[in-house]
Amino acid sequence: MTGRGESAVVLLSGGMDSLVTTAWAARNHDLALLHVSYGQRTADREKQAFLDIAAHYGVEQTLVLSIDHLRVIGGTSLIDRSIPLRTEGVQKDVIPTSYVPFRNAHLLSMAVSWAEVLGAGSVWIGAVEEDSSGYPDCSEAFFNAFGRAVGHGTAAGNIEIRIPLIHMSKSSIVTRGIELDAPFDLSWSCYQATESACGVCDSCRLRLNAFKDNNLDDPISYAINRI
Amino acid sequence: MTGRGESAVVLLSGGMDSLVTTAWAARNHDLALLHVSYGQRTADREKQAFLDIAAHYGVEQTLVLSIDHLRVIGGTSLIDRSIPLRTEGVQKDVIPTSYVPFRNAHLLSMAVSWAEVLGAGSVWIGAVEEDSSGYPDCSEAFFNAFGRAVGHGTAAGNIEIRIPLIHMSKSSIVTRGIELDAPFDLSWSCYQATESACGVCDSCRLRLNAFKDNNLDDPISYAINRI
Repeated sequence: MTGRGESAVVLLSGGMDSLVTTAWAARNHDLALLHVSYGQRTADREKQAFLDIAAHYGVEQTLVLSIDHLRVIGGTSLIDRSIPLRTEGVQKDVIPTSYVPFRNAHLLSMAVSWAEVLGAGSVWIGAVEEDSSGYPDCSEAFFNAFGRAVGHGTAAGNIEIRIPLIHMSKSSIVTRGIELDAPFDLSWSCYQATESACGVCDSCRLRLNAFKDNNLDDPISYAINRI
Repeated sequence: MTGRGESAVVLLSGGMDSLVTTAWAARNHDLALLHVSYGQRTADREKQAFLDIAAHYGVEQTLVLSIDHLRVIGGTSLIDRSIPLRTEGVQKDVIPTSYVPFRNAHLLSMAVSWAEVLGAGSVWIGAVEEDSSGYPDCSEAFFNAFGRAVGHGTAAGNIEIRIPLIHMSKSSIVTRGIELDAPFDLSWSCYQATESACGVCDSCRLRLNAFKDNNLDDPISYAINRI
């Protein structure tokens, strides 16, 4: 654990998990918030959530990177609109069409490069292994191996990869966020809508279930709420 | 070792090392050549070298990615022209100002994502540990750790990171390139010039010395050749 005053780079998409990760890092660190827009369907809405959350925490050190190369490399329904987005619910042991190949390696590389420029001691990412949609780059084994690559591949050599949510359920993430006073109303999780959340994509279903498990209403609005 | 017919993604900057790596991979694989332009001083010249080498090998599967985010993250003389480029020669144990923080993690992430989309079995990069300019992301330990992250973080799970030059000297890379009939005249190594190579940047000095050790003339032209 690093002490207050040392800054932490947090990857903040604007969704529920990265919001709670931000709230967690804010307890002991000066924040540097990084948002990456990579051509996903809801890029503008996510960026707005990022800006709202950064303002909520009074963070001055923010960086928004717009990248095009994941779209160019292709192969995902989150970006490629010719691949249908799955709305029939999360299945176990099936890698969904929304998977961006090796996406988290790109995001972490950006965060680590920025951390090295800033002299930050850690990079935080709100990845969840068990309760996620089965993306291989959300596994603890991946982050541990990547962390060792950071140790060997940077001049600083001591930038820590922090994955505080990795073994939490979506329900316990909501519980933790409430404890940390995370502003859930400012976050955005839906993969396809930008006004009211759709309520039927994997991300909406997981989020709605998590609030239900906590006997709470999600403060954002939904077009459909079958949970 | 993977067999002929299985394709290999090769990171080809257009320099001497990536050229020899391409020639090496071409012995046993169908090639998919990836070039990344990230705002370096000599980006156009390097891209031309890439295209010439791809044409030489008759490769149809090529991808050129132009990225801006390394320049935005900043911190390097290869991109930031306010930081002077070093021309006084390579020093041991000093990380040069041309270091792009964690650059190879970005390049490998792009290559791995593309390899996963293509179904390629390996990613090749012409990194050199001993004889390089002291970049931490050129170490074998970094590539090994990154390779484990690829194993855990991809759906395919079996994309191999190949670093055939990692323990070779620049001189032995030239020797190997000659054996493999690599078209050195099409490659470009200089960090700052785009017509005749400067002859004084770290990259030029290492290349010139390597040809001298082989009692060969480098087929490209130099503005200054003090070797």
